[in-house]
Amino acid sequence: MHKTLEWHGSIDGSLDLLDQRLLPNEVVRLECTTVPRLIDAIKTLAVRGAPAIGVAAGFGLVLALQNVQPNINTAIRELARAKKELAASRPTAVNLFYALDRVNTAACQFTSQCPTASINQLREIVLAQAQAIYDEDVEMCRRIGQNGAPLIPDGGAVLTHCNAGALATAGQGTALSLLYEAARQGKRFRVYVDETRPLLQGARLTAWECKQAGLDAVLICDNMAGSLMKAGKINAVLTGADRIAANGDTANKIGTYSLSVLAKYHAIPFYIAAPSSTFDLSIASGTQIPIEERSPAEVTAFAGKTIAPTDIAVYNPAFDVTDAANISAIITERGIINDPDSDNIRLHLA
Amino acid sequence: MHKTLEWHGSIDGSLDLLDQRLLPNEVVRLECTTVPRLIDAIKTLAVRGAPAIGVAAGFGLVLALQNVQPNINTAIRELARAKKELAASRPTAVNLFYALDRVNTAACQFTSQCPTASINQLREIVLAQAQAIYDEDVEMCRRIGQNGAPLIPDGGAVLTHCNAGALATAGQGTALSLLYEAARQGKRFRVYVDETRPLLQGARLTAWECKQAGLDAVLICDNMAGSLMKAGKINAVLTGADRIAANGDTANKIGTYSLSVLAKYHAIPFYIAAPSSTFDLSIASGTQIPIEERSPAEVTAFAGKTIAPTDIAVYNPAFDVTDAANISAIITERGIINDPDSDNIRLHLA
Repeated sequence: MHKTLEWHGSIDGSLDLLDQRLLPNEVVRLECTTVPRLIDAIKTLAVRGAPAIGVAAGFGLVLALQNVQPNINTAIRELARAKKELAASRPTAVNLFYALDRVNTAACQFTSQCPTASINQLREIVLAQAQAIYDEDVEMCRRIGQNGAPLIPDGGAVLTHCNAGALATAGQGTALSLLYEAARQGKRFRVYVDETRPLLQGARLTAWECKQAGLDAVLICDNMAGSLMKAGKINAVLTGADRIAANGDTANKIGTYSLSVLAKYHAIPFYIAAPSSTFDLSIASGTQIPIEERSPAEVTAFAGKTIAPTDIAVYNPAFDVTDAANISAIITERGIINDPDSDNIRLHLA
Repeated sequence: MHKTLEWHGSIDGSLDLLDQRLLPNEVVRLECTTVPRLIDAIKTLAVRGAPAIGVAAGFGLVLALQNVQPNINTAIRELARAKKELAASRPTAVNLFYALDRVNTAACQFTSQCPTASINQLREIVLAQAQAIYDEDVEMCRRIGQNGAPLIPDGGAVLTHCNAGALATAGQGTALSLLYEAARQGKRFRVYVDETRPLLQGARLTAWECKQAGLDAVLICDNMAGSLMKAGKINAVLTGADRIAANGDTANKIGTYSLSVLAKYHAIPFYIAAPSSTFDLSIASGTQIPIEERSPAEVTAFAGKTIAPTDIAVYNPAFDVTDAANISAIITERGIINDPDSDNIRLHLA
């Protein structure tokens, strides 16, 4: 299996990414040696998926200290600057802010506790913290899968949207981790994969990942999900999440909300699988989650070919918000939150 | 405005089509001089849209008689053969069968009434009947638009899917005709255009057509409709139809059913605009409508570029069926059928 991202070497090393812009046609690795290169990789979706973006950003703070003057105060300022720049690379995923805060806080605590520490000692702390986030992500993925695998219907079919798989994390994914664990347990099921316009993460990434893992995967266009549900061919819908508000409202790839309504209408369970770091308890509900709008060209052009009139207006939000009321359960590394609301989410995270 | 299709010349003439496979990048006309060429044009969607396919097929029977031996019996056999071949070109749209039946019946009636008629007299009858279908289609479009224009919300926004416009008919369209008439009446509104995967008839055709007509059109991906509805930005959904069963169940472009569920959930009216020839009273409900499945390559490749693993399984139905219960009204050239069901449809068509 191709690793989605990996730190190579010591504090002087680099972040090695699988370039997801080129999948499934080419498997090419991208070496990030500077913060600007990493920001570009995040913005252009060479690395994507909320957990993977968080892990990558943690290592980004290691990169931030590689060419800094050997002065602790300068280093701390440089970290703060890099943190701010990295945080601005994608506005919706909360894991990004979580990872940056965690690494930065560890660095600040270290320098205040050890004011005479060397710059290299600080860099070791930053790398260790970034690597810890990576390792925890791998473990988190495994646990999400184990917690949620019982929800996968043996002999049935699951619909997934976008890519919440190994390609979106350092480990074996969030939503897809349930499928990998269920398959390991001997369950047989089909995975319907939404192609996920406009950037086709389902067709390009999830279909590729599912085939690599030997799953029975069938690709569909996003607008076909409803008719499959009506035909009784889908037994569960399963997606990841980019941010979850305190009340359970969940931001995820555009199209997720529509699927949640269709699932509700057809009495099909709708599951979100995400690490507990995806919760943002600072916001009460989904209306407060900022939604990134991306370039019209993502919709109007494809593979260098224009597919719409060049002067047409376009609305291209990257995410939408699914009401907690439409979510049957949220699966985290800690367990399952059934019928999520503010109370049981607070209990789950306590 | 570019004509979607037009017969050029006399009984020895040809069918001139706007090649919709090349829009919006190139405006190229395609001259069909034989039945096989027309069948290829229908199958590959150079001409598409249920009413336009019907009109084109009518002229196809004129082409069928162009190189036939000057013998009435041979001609009638040739007509039957061409009718069968043309009917097999697309299985879902009922207008195709309607037009073929009508032209063929006129030819058979003529020859039984005038057994000594010349082959050229028969060919004139066939051309006249095909041209009558064309002329009626133009008038039908205008009337549908006039009947439905009062439903277009002044100051609001309408979502449409696929292309039920001038490009789908000989006239000014079915669903889009309502918009053209409403605009003529001075109403101001926005049109959200679903791109309509996999063949992007919305992005390529409806967006182009709306821009040509000067409408305020905004292109979206199919999976964005739900979040726009949730945000209160859509006041009506309006599509065409390929076949309507006796109870009002409606086959239309894949994705229409999902939109009908989303509209119902958000209490947004959902309208179908189609000529009365779209009704197929021989079938009681939508479950009996055959749904064409098309090539996986339509989903896995785009503009010659592979966008999914080459070995991935694909489900690619061209249409789905929307339950009559999800349809607020069907607009035909005869008027409006509110809350369509078997009874009021029978009354409307009587």
